[in-house]
Amino acid sequence: MNKQNEVEKMRHTLSHVLAAAVTELYPTTTFGVGPAIEDGFYYDIDFGEDKITEKDLDRIEKKMRGIIKRGFTMNRVVKKREQALDWADQAGQKYKTELIKDLPKNEEITFYDMVAPNGKTVFTDLCKGPHIESAKEIGAFKLTKVAGAYWRGDEKREMLTRVYGVAFATQEELEEYLKRQEEAKARDHRKLGKELDLYTFSDLVGAGLPMFTPRGTLMRDLLADYSLSLRKKAGFDRVWTPHITKVDLYKTSGHYAKFGDELFMVHSQVNGEEFALKPMNCPHHTQIFASRPRTYKEMPVRYMEPTTDYRDEKSGELGGLSRVRSLTQDDSHVFCRESQIKAEIANLVSIVKEFYEEMGMMKLRARLSYRSDEDKYLGDKKLWKMAQEQIKQAAIDNKLDFFEMEGEAAFYGPKIDFMAEDAIGREHQVATIQLDFVQPERFGLEFVNEKGEKERPVMIHHATMGSIERFMSVFIEHTAGWFPLWVAPEQVRILTVNDKVAKYVKEICAELDTVELMKPVKNNALRYSVDDSDDSLGKKIKRATEMKIPVVLIVGEKDMEAGEVSVRLHDKEEKVVLKELAKYLVKIK
Amino acid sequence: MNKQNEVEKMRHTLSHVLAAAVTELYPTTTFGVGPAIEDGFYYDIDFGEDKITEKDLDRIEKKMRGIIKRGFTMNRVVKKREQALDWADQAGQKYKTELIKDLPKNEEITFYDMVAPNGKTVFTDLCKGPHIESAKEIGAFKLTKVAGAYWRGDEKREMLTRVYGVAFATQEELEEYLKRQEEAKARDHRKLGKELDLYTFSDLVGAGLPMFTPRGTLMRDLLADYSLSLRKKAGFDRVWTPHITKVDLYKTSGHYAKFGDELFMVHSQVNGEEFALKPMNCPHHTQIFASRPRTYKEMPVRYMEPTTDYRDEKSGELGGLSRVRSLTQDDSHVFCRESQIKAEIANLVSIVKEFYEEMGMMKLRARLSYRSDEDKYLGDKKLWKMAQEQIKQAAIDNKLDFFEMEGEAAFYGPKIDFMAEDAIGREHQVATIQLDFVQPERFGLEFVNEKGEKERPVMIHHATMGSIERFMSVFIEHTAGWFPLWVAPEQVRILTVNDKVAKYVKEICAELDTVELMKPVKNNALRYSVDDSDDSLGKKIKRATEMKIPVVLIVGEKDMEAGEVSVRLHDKEEKVVLKELAKYLVKIK
Repeated sequence: MNKQNEVEKMRHTLSHVLAAAVTELYPTTTFGVGPAIEDGFYYDIDFGEDKITEKDLDRIEKKMRGIIKRGFTMNRVVKKREQALDWADQAGQKYKTELIKDLPKNEEITFYDMVAPNGKTVFTDLCKGPHIESAKEIGAFKLTKVAGAYWRGDEKREMLTRVYGVAFATQEELEEYLKRQEEAKARDHRKLGKELDLYTFSDLVGAGLPMFTPRGTLMRDLLADYSLSLRKKAGFDRVWTPHITKVDLYKTSGHYAKFGDELFMVHSQVNGEEFALKPMNCPHHTQIFASRPRTYKEMPVRYMEPTTDYRDEKSGELGGLSRVRSLTQDDSHVFCRESQIKAEIANLVSIVKEFYEEMGMMKLRARLSYRSDEDKYLGDKKLWKMAQEQIKQAAIDNKLDFFEMEGEAAFYGPKIDFMAEDAIGREHQVATIQLDFVQPERFGLEFVNEKGEKERPVMIHHATMGSIERFMSVFIEHTAGWFPLWVAPEQVRILTVNDKVAKYVKEICAELDTVELMKPVKNNALRYSVDDSDDSLGKKIKRATEMKIPVVLIVGEKDMEAGEVSVRLHDKEEKVVLKELAKYLVKIK
Repeated sequence: MNKQNEVEKMRHTLSHVLAAAVTELYPTTTFGVGPAIEDGFYYDIDFGEDKITEKDLDRIEKKMRGIIKRGFTMNRVVKKREQALDWADQAGQKYKTELIKDLPKNEEITFYDMVAPNGKTVFTDLCKGPHIESAKEIGAFKLTKVAGAYWRGDEKREMLTRVYGVAFATQEELEEYLKRQEEAKARDHRKLGKELDLYTFSDLVGAGLPMFTPRGTLMRDLLADYSLSLRKKAGFDRVWTPHITKVDLYKTSGHYAKFGDELFMVHSQVNGEEFALKPMNCPHHTQIFASRPRTYKEMPVRYMEPTTDYRDEKSGELGGLSRVRSLTQDDSHVFCRESQIKAEIANLVSIVKEFYEEMGMMKLRARLSYRSDEDKYLGDKKLWKMAQEQIKQAAIDNKLDFFEMEGEAAFYGPKIDFMAEDAIGREHQVATIQLDFVQPERFGLEFVNEKGEKERPVMIHHATMGSIERFMSVFIEHTAGWFPLWVAPEQVRILTVNDKVAKYVKEICAELDTVELMKPVKNNALRYSVDDSDDSLGKKIKRATEMKIPVVLIVGEKDMEAGEVSVRLHDKEEKVVLKELAKYLVKIK
């Protein structure tokens, strides 16, 4: 048994300790389920008339530590169905009764007794295990929060209180984890999105439907421009398609049979016609390819389109960009010959690498997502085998850090999904490259080859960012809102010390007007503002820092006399001569 | 009675002559209605078992000319209801019977007899008139086409054959009209859209939902870039909003009560939530304005967004961009103080003028659209009066060629609608500037003024192109597909005379790679291609001309030796030295 499994057992045992502690403090509580989870554990508890808040966690935690200090062993006990039901009945544990009744009739039913050193059983729970052997194996833990949870996830059933804890083998690991959590909280894009005035939601518009302010829109557009510029260099052309379509398009593509009941349906009140909001763009792009005859000379045909898809997420994560209903994809599709697949994938891989390197997310892992034996996949199995081999060869050829996973493919073909690591070590799924032999077949796509025969193209789906909204949520947290100069909505702010420098500020502005960044997006004219309000310099600096402006220029009379500006960056301060300022700014990352 | 009315009477009489001729040729036909229309006339005819096509028009026209040559007078006859019904019954004219029965009981019923010089009535028709007095007043005419038309426009009734004719006072006018029609046909954007590979439709996607190919997308984007760049200079910031919203947004704005039953409704199959596809963007933009507190210091706040709206046009004009269901607006909204309205409108007017001047559509007329006394308008009547006065003063101050029209305002305020004249004299409604005191009130928008009090902003709606799709339909026809260099999807094509110039072509390409147009859109890198196929030069030139490539460079060995290229523009040919080529291209309009 490896270390991870040991930690998991320990976390599971801690959920029993939590329940034992709660039972001592609130003798009439009844319990739902209490599993180990990533980083810790929880227990769903019915406190009856008692109301528990996060303020009570200290008291419960103290009690838990007492139980652990006193010591215990975990003893596995097997009971017959009747005995098990008797136990639940006597203990007044109605949820356990329900769980026991749902177990297969002939299965053995296991319990775990928590036995104190004096031999007394202090707590018994219905449980499959496994557990650690004794309290001595317990590492470091902390109760973190309470939340509501419906019994069995059913909103028509009882609302229980879920008490969460985190647990690790050592105190160091726990502290590191808590620090990382603090860090993540400070970087939370929902918090920064509001503070930096990047996007907003409105109850009148609806959950999961963000609206981007001027600052957020600048970022969206610059990120998309950069992402698409890499593909433009690689021969992709922009196309444009509408956001709705008759469902016939998805019936033909095969999406309808798979996801038809997840589509947002659009209804014409004028004549009753039915459409769907597009959740993806590939079927539309096939129709542009099919709009005129094609020959081998123009293959590969490469389309890209930044366009908004709509997906019916159950609720839309409130206030955030991680899960939205309106997701703008930096999407593209290559239509190529089989012999061109290798070069096209290599193109796309190098675009992904270049993009994430620029974003400061150098560590990329690739998941090769293959089909499983289930029959939810469309298309010839032989083609699948060939395509999966091509995907793997591409991963090897392009020196990807990859792993393979069955059952994660799209219904039309295998894919490479990229995971990028952010500044605090979290991994996020980002880019994707997908091979598709199915849609070209279903849409009857073809081109005329050298022999004058009709040949079927292959499709390669690719998005570099994936959804712009989701990527922004990752990027905001990765940078903690301190954006690289090129993509910062407001790049430079001039703060005046007093009114006497007004004329000099004009000279500075004239200098700034000449600045155009050329990397990674070309002709990116400098965005700056002047804070010449009557507020104190301290207040002005505080405001600029709160907005995380990358370059702050402080201008006082001495600067004016010296023909300089005081430059304040995130990590340093220095004086720069005015006539060197443009050159200086262009060099900042 | 003015000249236009005389022509209208003549056209109306011609519809009687048409019916008389048809009766002579097809004695058993029955007639629906036959009015004068713009440019001519038509008659809806039930030919019974005879099938009429455009091939038969010559024969009918000849018969009409015979009737006119023989001469006739038009005599008005009043009949009692009983007499009228008897006439229709005897003549076997069942549609006329239906028309007579629908006339108010006590109204006098008028007929017109067409009386030949010999005193014989050659044709009688139920008709309100007026008509010309005699055949002598007939000018020049021509039958043009046949089409199907349901009796009384009701698709459950009989399908009649509508025979169209055009008619003018003089032969010159007729010929000029026919020539203009020919010209319009050659410029038809539906024809050119296909030939120049700009956009496509798919039955799987649906009518009125164009998809733009790489060439069309380049044009869309360049036109939008230019339109928005003018507003960027004027202080507008881009924002981004989703394409769907809860209808609550439109209930608050007032749109729902007005147009609620015209919305495309969006339905979640997952949880039954209802949304609407946005048909306009102003309500979304109010929510960005309202997303944080505002002060007078940041007023005016100016948002712009090129975004696609969805409107439930009954059918979507087949194959065309004039009437689509997915219309992308180059939309913008100013939130300003009352005292700022004048300057903001002046800004927008000058943007409209600059844009259409660049498009070669210098002749702009402005319609000042006011409210009528109907109660479909929202908001205080005093505010309306004030707003209409401001609109008129702005038209005068900005020297617009304007006229005023009651009952054409938006429900929230008066507006200036611009009409631009195209190259063949047709007027198209394009830009709009709209004042709005209503939505700021309904959304409770406010900012804090100098006194620390809350003040309500005014909104000014503006789109320069209106819908990009509709503007493209106008622009394609205006230019007949010979686009100005900056916006042509493929600006330059190099045609090789033979293989020997291959190396020289590379030099030319290197030169072209240095070219970037700076007007009217900045950093507009040159788009070119090379046709070095084995086809004859003649065939290559034909292909380039068919695609209306603005600049064709023909490269033969002599050109190579001389270090020149043969430049072929739409209207001239000349030799240009290679090292002067970049400078030469930048100067082309």
